[in-house]
Amino acid sequence: DFAKIDIFREERAGKPEAVFGEGKSLEELVKIIEAYVKEKGRVLVTRVKKEHLEELKKRFGNARINERARTVIVGDIPQPFAKVAVLSAGTSDIAVAEEACETLIFLGIEPLKFYDVGVAGIHRLLEPLKKCMEEGVVAIIVVAGMEGALPSVVAGLVDVPVIGVPTSIGYGTSLKGFTALFSMLSSCSSGLAVVNIDNGFGAAVFASLIARVAKRGESK
Amino acid sequence: DFAKIDIFREERAGKPEAVFGEGKSLEELVKIIEAYVKEKGRVLVTRVKKEHLEELKKRFGNARINERARTVIVGDIPQPFAKVAVLSAGTSDIAVAEEACETLIFLGIEPLKFYDVGVAGIHRLLEPLKKCMEEGVVAIIVVAGMEGALPSVVAGLVDVPVIGVPTSIGYGTSLKGFTALFSMLSSCSSGLAVVNIDNGFGAAVFASLIARVAKRGESK
Amino acid sequence: DFAKIDIFREERAGKPEAVFGEGKSLEELVKIIEAYVKEKGRVLVTRVKKEHLEELKKRFGNARINERARTVIVGDIPQPFAKVAVLSAGTSDIAVAEEACETLIFLGIEPLKFYDVGVAGIHRLLEPLKKCMEEGVVAIIVVAGMEGALPSVVAGLVDVPVIGVPTSIGYGTSLKGFTALFSMLSSCSSGLAVVNIDNGFGAAVFASLIARVAKRGESK
Amino acid sequence: DFAKIDIFREERAGKPEAVFGEGKSLEELVKIIEAYVKEKGRVLVTRVKKEHLEELKKRFGNARINERARTVIVGDIPQPFAKVAVLSAGTSDIAVAEEACETLIFLGIEPLKFYDVGVAGIHRLLEPLKKCMEEGVVAIIVVAGMEGALPSVVAGLVDVPVIGVPTSIGYGTSLKGFTALFSMLSSCSSGLAVVNIDNGFGAAVFASLIARVAKRGESK
Amino acid sequence: DFAKIDIFREERAGKPEAVFGEGKSLEELVKIIEAYVKEKGRVLVTRVKKEHLEELKKRFGNARINERARTVIVGDIPQPFAKVAVLSAGTSDIAVAEEACETLIFLGIEPLKFYDVGVAGIHRLLEPLKKCMEEGVVAIIVVAGMEGALPSVVAGLVDVPVIGVPTSIGYGTSLKGFTALFSMLSSCSSGLAVVNIDNGFGAAVFASLIARVAKRGESK
Amino acid sequence: DFAKIDIFREERAGKPEAVFGEGKSLEELVKIIEAYVKEKGRVLVTRVKKEHLEELKKRFGNARINERARTVIVGDIPQPFAKVAVLSAGTSDIAVAEEACETLIFLGIEPLKFYDVGVAGIHRLLEPLKKCMEEGVVAIIVVAGMEGALPSVVAGLVDVPVIGVPTSIGYGTSLKGFTALFSMLSSCSSGLAVVNIDNGFGAAVFASLIARVAKRGESK
Amino acid sequence: DFAKIDIFREERAGKPEAVFGEGKSLEELVKIIEAYVKEKGRVLVTRVKKEHLEELKKRFGNARINERARTVIVGDIPQPFAKVAVLSAGTSDIAVAEEACETLIFLGIEPLKFYDVGVAGIHRLLEPLKKCMEEGVVAIIVVAGMEGALPSVVAGLVDVPVIGVPTSIGYGTSLKGFTALFSMLSSCSSGLAVVNIDNGFGAAVFASLIARVAKRGESK
Amino acid sequence: DFAKIDIFREERAGKPEAVFGEGKSLEELVKIIEAYVKEKGRVLVTRVKKEHLEELKKRFGNARINERARTVIVGDIPQPFAKVAVLSAGTSDIAVAEEACETLIFLGIEPLKFYDVGVAGIHRLLEPLKKCMEEGVVAIIVVAGMEGALPSVVAGLVDVPVIGVPTSIGYGTSLKGFTALFSMLSSCSSGLAVVNIDNGFGAAVFASLIARVAKRGESK
Ligand SMILES: Nc1ncnc2c1ncn2[C@@H]1O[C@H](COP(=O)(O)O)[C@@H](O)[C@H]1O
Ligand SMILES: Nc1ncnc2c1ncn2[C@@H]1O[C@H](COP(=O)(O)O)[C@@H](O)[C@H]1O
Ligand SMILES: Nc1ncnc2c1ncn2[C@@H]1O[C@H](COP(=O)(O)O)[C@@H](O)[C@H]1O
Ligand SMILES: Nc1ncnc2c1ncn2[C@@H]1O[C@H](COP(=O)(O)O)[C@@H](O)[C@H]1O
Ligand SMILES: [Mg+2]
Ligand SMILES: [Mg+2]
Ligand SMILES: [Mg+2]
Ligand SMILES: [Mg+2]
Ligand SMILES: [Mg+2]
Ligand SMILES: [Mg+2]
Ligand SMILES: [Mg+2]
Ligand SMILES: [Mg+2]
Repeated sequence: DFAKIDIFREERAGKPEAVFGEGKSLEELVKIIEAYVKEKGRVLVTRVKKEHLEELKKRFGNARINERARTVIVGDIPQPFAKVAVLSAGTSDIAVAEEACETLIFLGIEPLKFYDVGVAGIHRLLEPLKKCMEEGVVAIIVVAGMEGALPSVVAGLVDVPVIGVPTSIGYGTSLKGFTALFSMLSSCSSGLAVVNIDNGFGAAVFASLIARVAKRGESK
Repeated sequence: DFAKIDIFREERAGKPEAVFGEGKSLEELVKIIEAYVKEKGRVLVTRVKKEHLEELKKRFGNARINERARTVIVGDIPQPFAKVAVLSAGTSDIAVAEEACETLIFLGIEPLKFYDVGVAGIHRLLEPLKKCMEEGVVAIIVVAGMEGALPSVVAGLVDVPVIGVPTSIGYGTSLKGFTALFSMLSSCSSGLAVVNIDNGFGAAVFASLIARVAKRGESK
Repeated sequence: DFAKIDIFREERAGKPEAVFGEGKSLEELVKIIEAYVKEKGRVLVTRVKKEHLEELKKRFGNARINERARTVIVGDIPQPFAKVAVLSAGTSDIAVAEEACETLIFLGIEPLKFYDVGVAGIHRLLEPLKKCMEEGVVAIIVVAGMEGALPSVVAGLVDVPVIGVPTSIGYGTSLKGFTALFSMLSSCSSGLAVVNIDNGFGAAVFASLIARVAKRGESK
Repeated sequence: DFAKIDIFREERAGKPEAVFGEGKSLEELVKIIEAYVKEKGRVLVTRVKKEHLEELKKRFGNARINERARTVIVGDIPQPFAKVAVLSAGTSDIAVAEEACETLIFLGIEPLKFYDVGVAGIHRLLEPLKKCMEEGVVAIIVVAGMEGALPSVVAGLVDVPVIGVPTSIGYGTSLKGFTALFSMLSSCSSGLAVVNIDNGFGAAVFASLIARVAKRGESK
Repeated sequence: DFAKIDIFREERAGKPEAVFGEGKSLEELVKIIEAYVKEKGRVLVTRVKKEHLEELKKRFGNARINERARTVIVGDIPQPFAKVAVLSAGTSDIAVAEEACETLIFLGIEPLKFYDVGVAGIHRLLEPLKKCMEEGVVAIIVVAGMEGALPSVVAGLVDVPVIGVPTSIGYGTSLKGFTALFSMLSSCSSGLAVVNIDNGFGAAVFASLIARVAKRGESK
Repeated sequence: DFAKIDIFREERAGKPEAVFGEGKSLEELVKIIEAYVKEKGRVLVTRVKKEHLEELKKRFGNARINERARTVIVGDIPQPFAKVAVLSAGTSDIAVAEEACETLIFLGIEPLKFYDVGVAGIHRLLEPLKKCMEEGVVAIIVVAGMEGALPSVVAGLVDVPVIGVPTSIGYGTSLKGFTALFSMLSSCSSGLAVVNIDNGFGAAVFASLIARVAKRGESK
Repeated sequence: DFAKIDIFREERAGKPEAVFGEGKSLEELVKIIEAYVKEKGRVLVTRVKKEHLEELKKRFGNARINERARTVIVGDIPQPFAKVAVLSAGTSDIAVAEEACETLIFLGIEPLKFYDVGVAGIHRLLEPLKKCMEEGVVAIIVVAGMEGALPSVVAGLVDVPVIGVPTSIGYGTSLKGFTALFSMLSSCSSGLAVVNIDNGFGAAVFASLIARVAKRGESK
Repeated sequence: DFAKIDIFREERAGKPEAVFGEGKSLEELVKIIEAYVKEKGRVLVTRVKKEHLEELKKRFGNARINERARTVIVGDIPQPFAKVAVLSAGTSDIAVAEEACETLIFLGIEPLKFYDVGVAGIHRLLEPLKKCMEEGVVAIIVVAGMEGALPSVVAGLVDVPVIGVPTSIGYGTSLKGFTALFSMLSSCSSGLAVVNIDNGFGAAVFASLIARVAKRGESK
């Protein structure tokens, strides 16, 4: 009888086969990866410790490893069906931006990367945004720490959905990402929604759902 | 020379002609509405005081007034080009949900409303979600106060983008909406992004940008 | 004269002989355990460091050690006189759930365990709750981190006391358990009370007092 | 098909037919009360404004009104099947304590009231607790604001479940009830669980579920 | 003997004869103004209630009243000896910006005003900044609420000291100005220092001390 | 001329020659100790690391070392001229209590110690308080972490000044001592003042100033 | 039997017969005052509303009313047996300072008042402190809002106990008194203890206990 | 076309060629330093780890290393064109003060250092301030942790701009620098602006912009 409740099973297809690596031992990771690969053919692992990355590389020969993103992908990478831009304000925000990019790639989306285009020199921002428009991105992910002003500035200039990812970069009043988070949520620009601090993964999944909806439109 | 910088003008077309009514006097509102109507043909006013709503009704005969939403629309309502669902957890969240709906209508999107479907009786939720899937909504806006659990539950069941709107409903540990906000951001479900507390307007603008991207796909 | 004030001595029998292991050296633990065993015949130690667990195993040959729970029980385990369910939302919450289970066992209560039944797939929850009702549990302990939504959902479906245990699992807006805590306290479902973050021990003691009261009824 | 999911309907019988009066107009209250009375025969309304209390008295002739508790009960009061003690630390906490008492009465439980027994004169506490033990209460609800120390002291002396209700009484560092709340949750006494600030209603519902479980035992 | 300690008396000349009007009655204000005028010839009063402004206008015929700034100046206005720019992000920030301007005027500084040049349309900002450079301002005061991003953007573009004034404008995560404050302090642009929330007065006094130092240079 | 301002020099005699050891290297500590001993004949060092304690023992042969307090006294211990009680709620609070005791001893005051008399068994408290009264203590220092209820209970029972010292003991809602701090400040008992979290030193200095005032009275 | 526990009755004599007027109706106040006067001969009421002060003046002809302090004393004022200084940093802090003074007078202590001696002109402070030393005060109460720096400065200059009273005066980062409170507790000067925000009453009671201890010394 | 927007290039000359060393590896640092030196001739690196300082010393033979400041300067030091005072409250604040001094030196400004002049002995402050006035400093940087009172006291005595730098020194209620920060912002003295916690670098850059403005005046 209870099986009946799972009418939404196929509807959940958009959510990736992903594993949160933090706090898991190498053995646990290996076991989970093998289970996923066996059942679904592929898996994405995020927040993997430096020392585990190398070990996993050895065990899963053809795995795709991204050291800055601290991610591992085992299994096939699909052909991209859409484009999403990923901007980062500072160089320290790149780890989170790369996590978003790897997740996008895993989900069949091509990331356009524009890093270190922060508000301390706003003119650096214009070329990338022009490029975004030309390439027809379905969403722009903006990763920013410290004062987190970049997503507000971007959302004031474009008409695609902007997804803000606050990062825990900064000290003192940066409050480990809360200032950037609150700054984005309080933004006087509309067209901006946010995810948790350092959650590059979540931003990419959200962007991929937008891409799916856009594709659904396309295929009508 | 500076005009050159406004290359994004047409790109900002997605953002609505909207006025934030809070703290503005009746005279200020009338003047701003007239200016907008003259220049753009239409305008949306949000957060209008009870006493101002009636006065504006008198002055702008064919204005669309929504008392629960505390909004005023002067000018034409476009034909809807997409559907977005708006769910509310409790009855007290309806004011914010209605602000979202009026903004959607102003932006040419048909809202599907499902109110009072909160987690204290999770079975009430299934029928609405089935309906959402059948109607092909491009996004689901979920408005919830107190513990703010509803968006997490919804995002765990569907594969369209879910936009969480925390409300300031509740007392004590509800922290005027911050518990609902943090709850949504910490959600163990992916596919969920959020806007500021009580910001039904912002959620609707964001959903409309998704709809525009989806339509762009369609028209390819 | 002052002895007179201890009229409640026998009334406090419900509180377990327990030791909080955090910050205590191995030598201190051994001394305290021996003192308890001598005087009361038995003792429960919680929050024991990994390295101490093994040493205590050696010193107290027949001790019951639970590594995930980080607990040690020296002395007899009583026959269970009641049942209490222990649910966990995620796999990371299991350590706290196991602390609750070991405390229940120490107090003569059989725990029914249902782990990883979180709100990101709410249908996983129904089978366990049906089982709880059939088995006649006197209370349900629900352990959840991140957004902490599970206890609210459970309390909306059952009519036995639900004891929420927020955990410090999560990052960013999870606020080391405070978001889960406030979420549970703000819950729109009634029939839910909570204990401190990560306090599986306290939840179990509280549940055991409910069981005692229920048994008192029974024996009338 | 979806009806199938409501297998828990009868299990939810323990939750009271209650209405949260805050923010509702007199007309809304009257309509809701009439609907409940028609369908269920009875209803409890909490957090009713002073001016509404009198009006409701007039409209529902035999309603039970408690001005300090700001509650209204329309319909029959059941015969009590259990006893629960309600202690308050200060006189300012009495409003919340009375809300708990009215809810208990509505749910068929006799409240034993002991008010103004706070920790600034700890000797005042002993007589009430002795009485509680003699009367066989199934739980003790302790309402306290400011430093919120009373529930910890009580839980250190008895072996029945203690339910702490922090109140928003106090100024400065009382933090509108958060200091009392955190104090109770951090308590070094076990056997204590808490509900939201000022939530006398929730404490009583929780106590009533304990009473139901105890009665279930009794009737075996 | 103690007089000796006041060697700094003449050094404090830079601080204005100013009165904080908040919480003072009309009678108190009149008395204080008269005392200042008698002793120093002039006075600035800030944070004056709407109803008091009119009364003070009547009593002090030639007083300079600014309703938006809620300020009163009695006595002579000095000839300006320097220029300071005052930018505001939104229209709601203008009250605080005007308080800064009135204080500057009182201190002999000409304010250059550029209002509503916020980051939701960053191109609006360039013309004003070019003007600032041409006019040779000694400092730029930037008033911004909500996400408070404007001062960071400005400080990234100019080489004069930028003084950020966060305002309490906004709702939810704006936190009554704390998000703007922390955003400014966390700014990745250097050359920015801040004053308390809504403290237009303090920003102007600080700017005037910079002007004094610059003038001191000039007169060498 | 400036020497004139130091008229208070002799008035500051009550403040101890003390050094805060945290963050100082062994070499720095040795140098400072030698300087103090040379100039004043004696010195108290607090917050000394475990590894430094042993080294200092070797270098200053007749130093008084307290390992639990993490303090070092070099130089003579004066004859006690007054008594102060030091109570601790739990065993984990003892380190802070001992810091207070060592400071008292350094300042010529005899500490009466009563440890582990917390509110989870309030009857343990009465004997110590009776003793305090009999011995004529001039103040009672109460050290407590977690819910910090003990000082409130004590201040409700005695008529000498009670000095509360919150400790950072506890987890979750204990908030590293802030819950205990706020609890003490919000106390419904009067006759209680507090110092910073874990500041046993400060409590003792304050108590010693009371003793000095009392002695001044005595010698009249 | 329970009477036995009240062995501390006479020890509590130091605590005043005082009533917290906030939130109490005129009728309640009158009833409580009459009860106290009948039983104890006298009473102090604090935090009395403006409109109640006048009414109480009428009903209790010889009552001592202090409008700035918002206090009422009915019954005899004792002869002073000690002196305590009361300093205030700003003029807005005077209400709290006066509450402290009235409480001191009620308790038989002569207050020496020095108002508006804040740190923005530190030289104003020296004369008052010299006077304090000459008059032999047993304690100094320092009332300060905003940055709350005054108690730290005072405690660095004198050798009697300093009791800090933070006030809720200020805006923005003053955090309704928490900045002043934390500032005092973090003070690098020792010899300072604090009470709750705006708690002039508590500071005075604490000072009176010091005076009692000092007098006890005297009478030996 | 976009190059046009960089009209402000020359205006940004005031901002230093600086690198934030935290989180960067030795290799990254070496590469960045070489790049800067090649392009600009010089560079300042801040927040360099102890172990990196020595290595950089070896690689860049004539580099200026300051161990307390944890800074490295490679390239020429300009002749000073202005003076700025740097005061520190305690000895633990010196690291941050030294970061400010090195940045000043790098920017062509001579720092006047006055360390350990905190408010616990306010008389130590007067000599330094007199010196500041005599030397004609263009600004005073005041570094203070714990209660952060020193900048308020200084700003109350002088008429040059005071730049407050809160430090993360202290424990408990010092809140890692937030109490000092809020204290400075709430200061009742005007003429004070602040930068982020521990941001000695930012304070110095800001002071250097004041010096530039002053020099601009001079050269007119
Ligand atoms: N309810 C709302 N919540 C947040 N932002 C709003 C709301 N209504 C309008 N806005 C935004 O406020 C801007 C206008 O602000 P104003 O100039 O103060 O009327 C619009 O362009 C919208 O982006
Ligand atoms: N995991 C736990 N969490 C909270 N309290 C505990 C825990 N384990 C033991 N306790 C309590 O701590 C008390 C003993 O503390 P201690 O004297 O420090 O060992 C016991 O009586 C229990 O009430
Ligand atoms: N444990 C402590 N907690 C707070 N302050 C202390 C402590 N120990 C010493 N102090 C104070 O710190 C000052 C010395 O600080 P320092 O110069 O850093 O050694 C002394 O004058 C004392 O007032
Ligand atoms: N100690 C510091 N605190 C704050 N900002 C700094 C510091 N040192 C350098 N910076 C800033 O950081 C920028 C360089 O950051 P990065 O690219 O990460 O090296 C410089 O342009 C400075 O504005
Ligand atoms: Mg950034
Ligand atoms: Mg809800
Ligand atoms: Mg969870
Ligand atoms: Mg109380
Ligand atoms: Mg703004
Ligand atoms: Mg304790
Ligand atoms: Mg002040
Ligand atoms: Mg300091």
